[in-house]
Amino acid sequence: MSIDNILLVIILIAVLSLLYALIQSITIIREEEGPDHMRAIANAIREGAKAFISREYRTAGIVAVILAIIIALALRSEGGPILAVGFIAGFLGSAVAGLIGMLVSIQANVRVANRARKSKDLISGLNYAFSLAFRGGSVTGFSVVGFALLLMSVFYYVLRNPVLMSGLMFGASLMSLFARVGGGIYTKGADVGADLVGKVGLGLPEDDPRNPAVIADNVGDNVGDTAGMAADLYETYVVTGISAMLLAYFLHLPEIYVILPLLIGALAIIAAFIALPFVRLGKSKYIMGALYKGLAATVIVAGVILGVLFYILKLPSGLLVSAILGYLLMALMVIVTEYYTSYKFGPTRTIAASSQSGAAITIINGLGYGLQASFIPAIGIIIAILLAYYASAGTLDLASGFSMGVFGIAIASAAMLSLAVMILSIDAFGPITDNAGGIAEMAQLPEDIRDEITDPLDAVGNTTKAVTKAYAIASAALASLVLFTAYLIAFESYIGDSTNLSTLLNEFLIYNPLVIVGLIIGAVLPFFFTSFLMRAVGKAADSIVQEVKRQVETIVGLLEGKAKPDYGRAVDIVTATALREFLVPGIIAIVTPLAVGFILGPIALAGVLFGVILSGFPLAIMMTTGGAAWDNAKKYIEQGNFGGKGSEAHKAAVVGDTVGDAVKDTAGPAINPLVKVVNTISILFLPAIISASLLMIH
Amino acid sequence: MSIDNILLVIILIAVLSLLYALIQSITIIREEEGPDHMRAIANAIREGAKAFISREYRTAGIVAVILAIIIALALRSEGGPILAVGFIAGFLGSAVAGLIGMLVSIQANVRVANRARKSKDLISGLNYAFSLAFRGGSVTGFSVVGFALLLMSVFYYVLRNPVLMSGLMFGASLMSLFARVGGGIYTKGADVGADLVGKVGLGLPEDDPRNPAVIADNVGDNVGDTAGMAADLYETYVVTGISAMLLAYFLHLPEIYVILPLLIGALAIIAAFIALPFVRLGKSKYIMGALYKGLAATVIVAGVILGVLFYILKLPSGLLVSAILGYLLMALMVIVTEYYTSYKFGPTRTIAASSQSGAAITIINGLGYGLQASFIPAIGIIIAILLAYYASAGTLDLASGFSMGVFGIAIASAAMLSLAVMILSIDAFGPITDNAGGIAEMAQLPEDIRDEITDPLDAVGNTTKAVTKAYAIASAALASLVLFTAYLIAFESYIGDSTNLSTLLNEFLIYNPLVIVGLIIGAVLPFFFTSFLMRAVGKAADSIVQEVKRQVETIVGLLEGKAKPDYGRAVDIVTATALREFLVPGIIAIVTPLAVGFILGPIALAGVLFGVILSGFPLAIMMTTGGAAWDNAKKYIEQGNFGGKGSEAHKAAVVGDTVGDAVKDTAGPAINPLVKVVNTISILFLPAIISASLLMIH
Repeated sequence: MSIDNILLVIILIAVLSLLYALIQSITIIREEEGPDHMRAIANAIREGAKAFISREYRTAGIVAVILAIIIALALRSEGGPILAVGFIAGFLGSAVAGLIGMLVSIQANVRVANRARKSKDLISGLNYAFSLAFRGGSVTGFSVVGFALLLMSVFYYVLRNPVLMSGLMFGASLMSLFARVGGGIYTKGADVGADLVGKVGLGLPEDDPRNPAVIADNVGDNVGDTAGMAADLYETYVVTGISAMLLAYFLHLPEIYVILPLLIGALAIIAAFIALPFVRLGKSKYIMGALYKGLAATVIVAGVILGVLFYILKLPSGLLVSAILGYLLMALMVIVTEYYTSYKFGPTRTIAASSQSGAAITIINGLGYGLQASFIPAIGIIIAILLAYYASAGTLDLASGFSMGVFGIAIASAAMLSLAVMILSIDAFGPITDNAGGIAEMAQLPEDIRDEITDPLDAVGNTTKAVTKAYAIASAALASLVLFTAYLIAFESYIGDSTNLSTLLNEFLIYNPLVIVGLIIGAVLPFFFTSFLMRAVGKAADSIVQEVKRQVETIVGLLEGKAKPDYGRAVDIVTATALREFLVPGIIAIVTPLAVGFILGPIALAGVLFGVILSGFPLAIMMTTGGAAWDNAKKYIEQGNFGGKGSEAHKAAVVGDTVGDAVKDTAGPAINPLVKVVNTISILFLPAIISASLLMIH
Repeated sequence: MSIDNILLVIILIAVLSLLYALIQSITIIREEEGPDHMRAIANAIREGAKAFISREYRTAGIVAVILAIIIALALRSEGGPILAVGFIAGFLGSAVAGLIGMLVSIQANVRVANRARKSKDLISGLNYAFSLAFRGGSVTGFSVVGFALLLMSVFYYVLRNPVLMSGLMFGASLMSLFARVGGGIYTKGADVGADLVGKVGLGLPEDDPRNPAVIADNVGDNVGDTAGMAADLYETYVVTGISAMLLAYFLHLPEIYVILPLLIGALAIIAAFIALPFVRLGKSKYIMGALYKGLAATVIVAGVILGVLFYILKLPSGLLVSAILGYLLMALMVIVTEYYTSYKFGPTRTIAASSQSGAAITIINGLGYGLQASFIPAIGIIIAILLAYYASAGTLDLASGFSMGVFGIAIASAAMLSLAVMILSIDAFGPITDNAGGIAEMAQLPEDIRDEITDPLDAVGNTTKAVTKAYAIASAALASLVLFTAYLIAFESYIGDSTNLSTLLNEFLIYNPLVIVGLIIGAVLPFFFTSFLMRAVGKAADSIVQEVKRQVETIVGLLEGKAKPDYGRAVDIVTATALREFLVPGIIAIVTPLAVGFILGPIALAGVLFGVILSGFPLAIMMTTGGAAWDNAKKYIEQGNFGGKGSEAHKAAVVGDTVGDAVKDTAGPAINPLVKVVNTISILFLPAIISASLLMIH
């Protein structure tokens, strides 16, 4: 089969993925929405989500147009216009995929609640509600991966040169930065603010309709967790794919190797199709188990197809080993995250127990476990790197310069990322059930329906979010590592013919002061970047607290439930704060690599690229894992342990949970786009940096 | 003047430094201790401190003897016995210096309180108490630096080979690990436990004599802040000095360059002698200002002497610039830390204000500022590295391999460290005044004496501790960087003649998978290491809480003040817990570099050495700065802001303060010895690793 034909098959599979998403969307929207009062709540959430997204997209769009012009002009001798078109395409692909996922989520949420309401009995109700929520989530999974794969394969089909595709990567990065960071500040500003007012200030339970911030909170789940995660994994998917293609291209490997990352992506979609029927609740009602079954089936089917494919195409078995290492790494991340964040295991239970000694000990122990949680994943990544390199290169020796070894690492990363189709389906399930739970609460559905259907589904959403976040971080780290290697190899190829290469490569020695300085800048960057996000959450929360106080004072009968709060204004205020607070960290992420590149040169910049991964990875894991553990420790107490709801332990756990919100949903996940945007912008502007940097050597 | 004579002058200055410490100790002990009830309190603190130290030293001693035997045997072909003797000498020097400092502190504390009690008027009382406390602190400063300089110069005088002195470094590292980590767990376990029981549980004020944990808490100040910090800076001082000497040696520079780091240390002692009279309170009673005056005078005098010395010895001006950069870096660390942790400035005030919204927002904002605080120091370090390198090498190009540039960085580091004599004097002032405040409280001295003398002195102790901690972290980072360079250059020299050097150096390229893997391990290490410390504080605090509860239940009349609590048992319990909890992190710090070295080889190990600095630096700054800001935010509220003591804001700030205790006094500072021990053990065992590692290349 010719390369052209293989590419056409890949394109076809990407289209099938989008078609599946479309059909699912239609069947979901055909479901009944439920009675008026539920629809009213759902409509409020929809309006809020659309208002946020349209504002966010408008701002992001303006920035994208400006950057596209800069790219077209600054890189005009390196195919600037093509890069700019790719940049816009990558950006729009992410925007559209995220939007589709979110639009379906905000339709599915109320329908899940309605299915729960209408169920004949609790068991079939749970089954149907679960399946509907998962189908809703799968729209995000298949549309994100579909768009990403379609764009990459069409661009490659037309251009036949991955270097000209680096615009796609940066476009995806930019959208991801907006969606993850802007959306992250929004979602947790609203959540923390709603909690503070509702729980701390006015004594209202969660999701109480009298709380003016409650809709803003539910909106946050969709814009942060669905659209944000969608953009994040879309970006990582594109970045991994293209940087692996770049490596194959620069290493002058046969073209089948260049399109191998795309092929791995396509076969994972097939595997996911086959695995879909495995996602069903057994008699045990173990919801998380049903999702894991689907994931496991995807991995197994993908592994089998991959093996057959390697056999047919006569590809080296070292790369097959590398790909399987990528799958295993996904499994490891899931297991470790489960251990640290589920209240079935020691860490979360210890945090819950220590809450009896007050909030300070809750925080100390949560930080303690968060600090610990990156160790095993790091060991896993290390083993995967070494084995993938060794399996592909046959040696750990780098004496001969770049080799198949680095491509092996890239293939491991591409295989891990190919599973995003299923991971995202599971992830987007979370906000739907979270919202469904909120709607059930606000619409005052019968208690048994909430206790037996919507609440258990909502609780699982917490775990899915933690697990997929850990996967997203690990794959972002691995993808950036591949991108970093692509940067170095691109540097080599850009400069190779014009000067003494071996002298120049010496500059990348780890004890070069420029490399050291770059690494230090890179390592400090995730700390500096997230510092703004932490404080932004505080500010956004404060803005909504003030607004709720104002509404309580000015709207007569609000607390008695006689008058309706102005949900829309609360949404508007957090939206404005979130986008304003996004400004500084957003600029930092984009300007730092360019400033280092143009002032200190491409060698220091290489240090930055890797430094940001080095500290960003453990910091992000610490934040997301510690945060999820606090969250579930609170849930564990609410189940009646250590005094249950309203006890001193519960109050302490609420403090932990609120801190956890900021670290796990805003600061921690935002490190992903930071790491990637720093890397993509550097590789895109590398030719300009080489020719214009102040401290360029030689 | 011959090298021999210069060395003798340096030795003489080191002896003078120790003599000064001896004379000060005698004059302090001659001061009156005060009435019986004050002496009883002081005696309880002394007994507790001695009990902890003797247990800690016994355990550390056993480990040291075992390691000395291993060193003597494993490195027998590289002068093992000499290295082992150096190791023991370095270890004992640290132990003795720390012990002297602590013994004087626990004599000075009650005498400061007594001076305050006996003062004719409040102004002269403050003056005298301040001067006595500073003189007490200066004993630590001059004895630590005196011992360190004496050992290094005598060893060099005898051996004339810095390679044989690397045992000294590791000995200092081992003691520092015990003192910082074991002492750190002890001090904050006791503090947090005492706070939880005293403030949260039983409603007793701080330092109330009815609280059985109160003596343990005061003991903690001495064993953690005095002995711990003394061992930490002793280690950094020795490590910086010897690694700078190693660089000069391996670069084959003239011998005057080899002893230049010692000379810089000696002249800083002279400068400190001259600066001592500047440490006096003006009419403004601005205590911190008096300390800063002394520091500024030391820097200015040292700079002048250094300039004269460089002129006489005809040393290159580039190295003078490097040294002055080291002084400036100290000043930068002081200013930045002041900004982030003093309640005169925005960050701490913002945290205090946000406490009105509850403990969660206090934590979120404190973490936010902590994450931010490493940025400016990192930029300062980067500029210092680049300028010191450039000033000394005349270029930023590394094409010619190692050069004077790296020695310039080492000299900057040595100059920064030479100021430890004054920094430590200021630092050890803190625990003395902290204890004096506690004794004044427990002995129920008149309110105006506490309000006007002991409390203001105590409050300054907080700032001095934060400032010196930041200095210690930055200098540890810089010292480790120099040590890391020494490791690489030592590697080059060990292997240089036996194989193709340029091929081998290629292995240290930043994109070598072994380097990448090493960097990842190193970057995760500070996170993993501190995770145990965070949880250890929780456990130690819990153990003392349980003990206090037991005493309250079993000792009749305890809470009414009719019966005395069993202070000793409380001390014993925290001591045992602290040393037990030290075990795992201690083993991790020592075993990780050896395991990586012997399994993955010296190239991966180089990655570990630098990786641990890269993430350790921002993490440590985040912890110490964030913690101090929480502490002072609480103090700011206690001054009557945002509702003052007992308000909701105050309760939230207490949570922040308690979390801050664990991060700023246990986990954060423990990163210093981790970073250094990993580096010193690696350089010591490098010859053995080169000959025995499994994955050694070629």
